[in-house]
Amino acid sequence: MLIEIYLSDLKKQREAKQLNDPISNSDSQVAVNLASRTYAIEINPGLLNQLSNALAGFVSDDHVILVTDNNVAELYLETVVSQISEIAQRVDVIRVSPGEESKSISVCDELWQRMVDFKTDRQSVVVALGGGVVGDLAGFLAASFARGIRFIQIPTTLLAQVDSSVGGKVGVNLPGAKNMVGAFWQPELVLIDPLVLETLDEANFRAGLAEVIKYGLIMDVGFFESLEASVDLIGKRDPVALTQSIARCCKCKAAIVEEDERETSGRRAILNYGHTYGHAIEAVFGFGRFLHGEAISIGMTCAARLARELGMVQDFFVARQTELFQRMQLPVDCPAERHDELIASMKHDKKVARGELKLILPVRIGEVVVVAAPEDQLILDSLKN
Amino acid sequence: MLIEIYLSDLKKQREAKQLNDPISNSDSQVAVNLASRTYAIEINPGLLNQLSNALAGFVSDDHVILVTDNNVAELYLETVVSQISEIAQRVDVIRVSPGEESKSISVCDELWQRMVDFKTDRQSVVVALGGGVVGDLAGFLAASFARGIRFIQIPTTLLAQVDSSVGGKVGVNLPGAKNMVGAFWQPELVLIDPLVLETLDEANFRAGLAEVIKYGLIMDVGFFESLEASVDLIGKRDPVALTQSIARCCKCKAAIVEEDERETSGRRAILNYGHTYGHAIEAVFGFGRFLHGEAISIGMTCAARLARELGMVQDFFVARQTELFQRMQLPVDCPAERHDELIASMKHDKKVARGELKLILPVRIGEVVVVAAPEDQLILDSLKN
Repeated sequence: MLIEIYLSDLKKQREAKQLNDPISNSDSQVAVNLASRTYAIEINPGLLNQLSNALAGFVSDDHVILVTDNNVAELYLETVVSQISEIAQRVDVIRVSPGEESKSISVCDELWQRMVDFKTDRQSVVVALGGGVVGDLAGFLAASFARGIRFIQIPTTLLAQVDSSVGGKVGVNLPGAKNMVGAFWQPELVLIDPLVLETLDEANFRAGLAEVIKYGLIMDVGFFESLEASVDLIGKRDPVALTQSIARCCKCKAAIVEEDERETSGRRAILNYGHTYGHAIEAVFGFGRFLHGEAISIGMTCAARLARELGMVQDFFVARQTELFQRMQLPVDCPAERHDELIASMKHDKKVARGELKLILPVRIGEVVVVAAPEDQLILDSLKN
Repeated sequence: MLIEIYLSDLKKQREAKQLNDPISNSDSQVAVNLASRTYAIEINPGLLNQLSNALAGFVSDDHVILVTDNNVAELYLETVVSQISEIAQRVDVIRVSPGEESKSISVCDELWQRMVDFKTDRQSVVVALGGGVVGDLAGFLAASFARGIRFIQIPTTLLAQVDSSVGGKVGVNLPGAKNMVGAFWQPELVLIDPLVLETLDEANFRAGLAEVIKYGLIMDVGFFESLEASVDLIGKRDPVALTQSIARCCKCKAAIVEEDERETSGRRAILNYGHTYGHAIEAVFGFGRFLHGEAISIGMTCAARLARELGMVQDFFVARQTELFQRMQLPVDCPAERHDELIASMKHDKKVARGELKLILPVRIGEVVVVAAPEDQLILDSLKN
């Protein structure tokens, strides 16, 4: 078993980082190379006001179905529709209620019918303007309508910008089974405007940071250290720090998706660090009690504790990970009740293979591995704070 | 415009065919070459009683979800479950009501939930045992559950054996919009036992012949001539003639699917000869009034009449096509009412691109082309017998 050893003076390291290399990688474009499904992610402050340029070549005299939620619509719908209308043949708008409840089969059923009413055809383009719920729902509508039509993502939450809008995972929930109906359906383009995060509420902004930190933990120790050094800048939503962080996350995600587009080799599974716990927490306590990022912050903390029990990491790892979550004001404590239900829910996870639960566990900052779950008692212990 | 000219003595040709080359191509295996999604179609009389052999290497200690309908279940479920149980870890059975009504979102919704209850995971395999409805429904369940799981087809109707089980088109209907929600999801294996056709009712058997004849019309004049020469043998469901015909159809379909898996180049569209009319007939008159094969027999007849009006074929073509349909006891007359609704429904077809309806029209026996639809009046005229 690999044992993490960090002997350097962490504090000194942090100070050095903060001065010289807050967060590297500032490119405004990231490519996701997937042969015929290759696409670009554009990351630019102010992009939302330049959509007609950014979409040129993708939406030209086409029928666009713009999917958004009522919260996002209030802030950005007018701008976005006016921009897209400059280049599209026509724009039909679908507005859904904000929140996980919209990721359901009954909502899909209604919206598929509306797409028929809109005379949607195989040349139409679905554009998702919103957070993860809107992107996952709109993506599944695009994947399944007429056996698959074109799809563009304009993510408006930090979570969606760094995670759900990239990589082609789309879908909706079944009762008690998150994302159980869906597809791998890659967007043609992802347009990210970090300035829209200015209007994101604090809880959702903080929740998104859990996924940001996750990239550091699973594959990029340098990024993790940069984040440790930039907590204040990021907390203040500094546009430069955010743009750089989002680009770095997208690069990490693109690299993994390129290696394992359909989660078959096991490589892509590392993105699910903390997610088997997190999905169970969301399912058992209801999607309303914890935001997804909060649930996986708790989940990564549980996973780190389990890894420590298994001798894969030492106390120091758990403490360092926990400290960054807490400095970013993310929860790390699992509720004290219903632990048996959590275990049962984890065993329903999509990552269960042939009845055997696998977990993503850390071995050091910047590296995680996929392991067969140990006996239930150890998992139960890892839920305790 | 290409004009068909058939000057040879058709009757003499037919007699020669009947003696020497009733139907060529008797191989029992057809490959569908699609890179990483390549799969085999096995065509063998008696295959249903040898499933444990045929499935070896595909189902080994796996969880199988067998989807079938109540009619097929009564005849073959016991045999099939007992065969699969020899090699699978466990077999869960889903039985649906026979008929197009089962291809609906509400049925999917119920069955996705049952798949959760069965603890279906990404290693599970969906096996479709039935006709086109079962295959399309089961395939969409497989395509969409956990973003896509493995899928095997065991088609039990002629229609499914020669058409719907091969090529990966899966999906369900929306009210008034056939196959509008679905995916391209290739099976891992297609197992065809022509002997199961012995229990198929005469109407469904005849309806399947419409798709068989279609392959001759769209791409294989030799096959069309063989069919003209083999009407009696096929009508008697001679196992050798059927096996050879099914294999020939599967080869035709495989060749087209290999060229244009996702119906993007236009090549695959030729398989829809008669289908834009046929889908409209099914939608307007109800899926109960005409079997799919009957609707497309009428549809191909309308398409041939339209082609004649446009100068693409001559009377002789229409007469020869119609004669074979009639000798196979297929309907060729469109109902005399609700023609305006048929036109409106045709314009909702999935093959509509940018609002422009395209039609597949014949230029000679063995060749069809994709053309922009002419003015409505000409289409209306083509509906009249």
